[in-house]
Amino acid sequence: MTDKLRAILTLGGALMVGAAAMQAQGGESPTERAIEYRRGMMEVFSWNLSAMGDVVKGEAPYDKAAFARHARDLAHATELDLLKGFPEDSVNDESDAKDEIWLQWKEFAAKFRKLQEESAKLAKVSAAGNLEKIKPQFKETAETCKACHKDYRK
Amino acid sequence: MTDKLRAILTLGGALMVGAAAMQAQGGESPTERAIEYRRGMMEVFSWNLSAMGDVVKGEAPYDKAAFARHARDLAHATELDLLKGFPEDSVNDESDAKDEIWLQWKEFAAKFRKLQEESAKLAKVSAAGNLEKIKPQFKETAETCKACHKDYRK
Repeated sequence: MTDKLRAILTLGGALMVGAAAMQAQGGESPTERAIEYRRGMMEVFSWNLSAMGDVVKGEAPYDKAAFARHARDLAHATELDLLKGFPEDSVNDESDAKDEIWLQWKEFAAKFRKLQEESAKLAKVSAAGNLEKIKPQFKETAETCKACHKDYRK
Repeated sequence: MTDKLRAILTLGGALMVGAAAMQAQGGESPTERAIEYRRGMMEVFSWNLSAMGDVVKGEAPYDKAAFARHARDLAHATELDLLKGFPEDSVNDESDAKDEIWLQWKEFAAKFRKLQEESAKLAKVSAAGNLEKIKPQFKETAETCKACHKDYRK
């Protein structure tokens, strides 16, 4: 690595640390807070979905209790008020949210309700513990995520 | 701005975009996923706490239903399995989590249970809708956050 490249990487790192520190100190606007919140919600969804996805794809062993817990946590997480994380004034360049969210708000909200419904079904079938019955419902649930990301995420 | 500085900033930006793209594409390790998950959970806690905090501090008007919803969402979010977001091998330099989490796991888990308990009480008193009774319970709840961050966050 050349000294110049090393200097550039160091500065790049410092910029990222600076940005993180600014966030940690708070002082965010209501819109910034909303964006951080909805991103946090997506991480919580993703964590639970990924863990279940690994099992469904055969990349991780099926542990009935652990799977059921992920399904339950996903269902509970979808019961939180995600839509509040999309205030109208959060249309900006720093987010992957498309304007269509606000232009088609009813459809967007309906897609979120669909995620809630499918997640609740997944939690129920996961509690029963038959992986062959869980798999199709997992796919239904994952499809609702994809459908929303396809239409509303850049 | 000099050309050199501009070049450095551009590369810094490209590095950040690259890192974000890598994340968005998945391919994260289980440990990275856990860290993203627990950070997401903190954002969800923070969103609800900040909104209630603004009301308690008199910086936002008290809306009974909105406040109760935030308190309910916080309580429900604390029921998710946050502790799974702290696997033992996630001790690393890129996170603010202190080693004490794993060295004092029982105490750490107990502090999280305390947050669950205080949040549940806050949800209950918030549903009743008397702001003067809500305020002390909000402070109790916020104190449990602070206690944990003080001991376990760099």
